[in-house]
Amino acid sequence: MRTVYVNGVYLPEDQAQVSIFDRGFLFGDAVYEVTAVMNGKMVDFDAHMDRLERSMSELDMSNGYERKDLLAIHKALIERNDLEEGLVYLQVTRGVADRDFDFSGLDAPLGLVLFTQAKSLESNPLAARGQKIVLADDQRWGRADIKTVQLLYSSLMKTRAKKQGADDVWLCRDGKITEGSSNNAYIVSHNNEIITRELSTDILHGITRVSVLKIAEAHQLKIVERAFSVDELMSAKEAFSTSASGFVNPVVSVNGTAIGNGEPGEVTEALRASYVRESQAASI
Amino acid sequence: MRTVYVNGVYLPEDQAQVSIFDRGFLFGDAVYEVTAVMNGKMVDFDAHMDRLERSMSELDMSNGYERKDLLAIHKALIERNDLEEGLVYLQVTRGVADRDFDFSGLDAPLGLVLFTQAKSLESNPLAARGQKIVLADDQRWGRADIKTVQLLYSSLMKTRAKKQGADDVWLCRDGKITEGSSNNAYIVSHNNEIITRELSTDILHGITRVSVLKIAEAHQLKIVERAFSVDELMSAKEAFSTSASGFVNPVVSVNGTAIGNGEPGEVTEALRASYVRESQAASI
Repeated sequence: MRTVYVNGVYLPEDQAQVSIFDRGFLFGDAVYEVTAVMNGKMVDFDAHMDRLERSMSELDMSNGYERKDLLAIHKALIERNDLEEGLVYLQVTRGVADRDFDFSGLDAPLGLVLFTQAKSLESNPLAARGQKIVLADDQRWGRADIKTVQLLYSSLMKTRAKKQGADDVWLCRDGKITEGSSNNAYIVSHNNEIITRELSTDILHGITRVSVLKIAEAHQLKIVERAFSVDELMSAKEAFSTSASGFVNPVVSVNGTAIGNGEPGEVTEALRASYVRESQAASI
Repeated sequence: MRTVYVNGVYLPEDQAQVSIFDRGFLFGDAVYEVTAVMNGKMVDFDAHMDRLERSMSELDMSNGYERKDLLAIHKALIERNDLEEGLVYLQVTRGVADRDFDFSGLDAPLGLVLFTQAKSLESNPLAARGQKIVLADDQRWGRADIKTVQLLYSSLMKTRAKKQGADDVWLCRDGKITEGSSNNAYIVSHNNEIITRELSTDILHGITRVSVLKIAEAHQLKIVERAFSVDELMSAKEAFSTSASGFVNPVVSVNGTAIGNGEPGEVTEALRASYVRESQAASI
């Protein structure tokens, strides 16, 4: 049984509870981060905490945490759960109060929950066989750049994709891809350009995205940050997604049509290999 | 201290908890209803339960509840808490599972939480003095017709409105009003037409909306169901909102500009009075 962290206390997971009046539960009023763990060490911890602070600030949540305390909790959970490979999930909620849309008078402390998940990241079978993707309209709220727990739409669309035999969903707005259910989306053009949507309120500002674009540059690949259409995706040489827990994951089909030759692409595989190497080297 | 209901058990509110792995807490994967209570009796209970079933069905939640059991829990909470006037809040979540966007393999029971809030509904001071509204872009997800707990945007915008000295926010899409933070929006034109946005995925299908439109018809008022613009709102004779807990609430200013003569309008007041009378008569 896992040990998890809830509002100051380390607990067995089956005793880990929050009040029904927690605003995370009643209003989706909570933000989160997921940090990958490789060989017992965290990848990009500071970048995740930077993004957490940004999410909180965009939502008028005052930040009551010291980064060193959050680091200590992450490390304690990795140690207590003997986590070699997987992830640490962190959620900050606006706290507990009787239900009211108006939180202007709230003086409750923030809520803080963390737990680990053991998971095979480096030898994720999807990386070897490639993901089958289906497309769906992007009906999420207008601030996909803020990492809130309002994940119902992505979760529902991913589940419907799985029920159709696919691995994940990519979302489209006005005929152009925004991103995956919990990952950023890329194509590789026939002249080896890496094309991915530019940063805006439409997509999550992926931490793995930053790292992979740096690696692509080092590989002498041209990077083009712009929205790409469904047509461009269908005729791309390769396609892939990036995320903290998925790293770089090839896409081999979209809505049942093969992308490229229907196998994980070589540019994608090279980027994944470099990412695994570099992120492990920089982990803490 | 209130008695609340959590997953089969009646508990003091300070012991009312759910697992941190509840999908309502981690994914906003939960739906809710709020039923008004007047003189210890519920208004429009069946209509709320009909809408709950629709919300669940739209989200691929199988319905595990008998309506008579839900009715019994509502009544038990009203009795245990001596609730004369206020509301009963009900939330159904998809249940508890280790965190995963994909819930296709989930076989957990649904989660069920109910609690009461005592509140002055009939003599709500906002009804007497009228609401000051500010406008904001509608950045919610594309299915505002499903009553999910993904309420962060509405809650944030309402709170920012309060901080500016207003009472609530009305949301706009493409220059036209969708609805308020937790209520439907109406104007009364200078020839006494009641104009309110038609039902679609853009707005909640208000139960009070249905009742109030029926009452308006009985008052020989012409009803026009279409989106109205910000300009039409600013030059309207009257404006008001409806909701289960707010009934019919006049709007006296928008972004600091008076609507009509800046006082609650007479059509609005007549509709409110009829609604209070009829809903009490039909309550159970």
